[in-house]
Amino acid sequence: MKKATFYHAGCPVCVSAEQELLNLLDLSKISLETVHLGEEKHQIAAAEALGVHSVPALVLDNGAVLHINHGASMAEVKG
Amino acid sequence: MKKATFYHAGCPVCVSAEQELLNLLDLSKISLETVHLGEEKHQIAAAEALGVHSVPALVLDNGAVLHINHGASMAEVKG
Repeated sequence: MKKATFYHAGCPVCVSAEQELLNLLDLSKISLETVHLGEEKHQIAAAEALGVHSVPALVLDNGAVLHINHGASMAEVKG
Repeated sequence: MKKATFYHAGCPVCVSAEQELLNLLDLSKISLETVHLGEEKHQIAAAEALGVHSVPALVLDNGAVLHINHGASMAEVKG
């Protein structure tokens, strides 16, 4: 089972992107974890270390980072 | 079967994003078409009308446009 982490900050762009992704992904092959960086601010540094520059973003277990549309920069997430 | 169109321009960011998407998508539910706007410039206007601002981008048949990372703006694609 591959693993993917969807980072978001609760913004409308994030919520919309998550819904579209859930429709597209093969959840029989991918275990999807969701992290709300607005509520889990202690995860921000780890997300940045993985290469997340903006949310929403999907990080795959092979290290690839897919930034999807643009809801908020990490600077905005930090507030 | 849902339909999705992946617009790209052959750039490294595009190629990488396409490979990641092919790993993630449920191709039993989604029919994926790929359009290389660098080679099919007559498709650029249609892509813009669908809301594509940059490539790579994935357009879903419900009208949602997912811009993935950022390879090139449409202005750059037009050349």
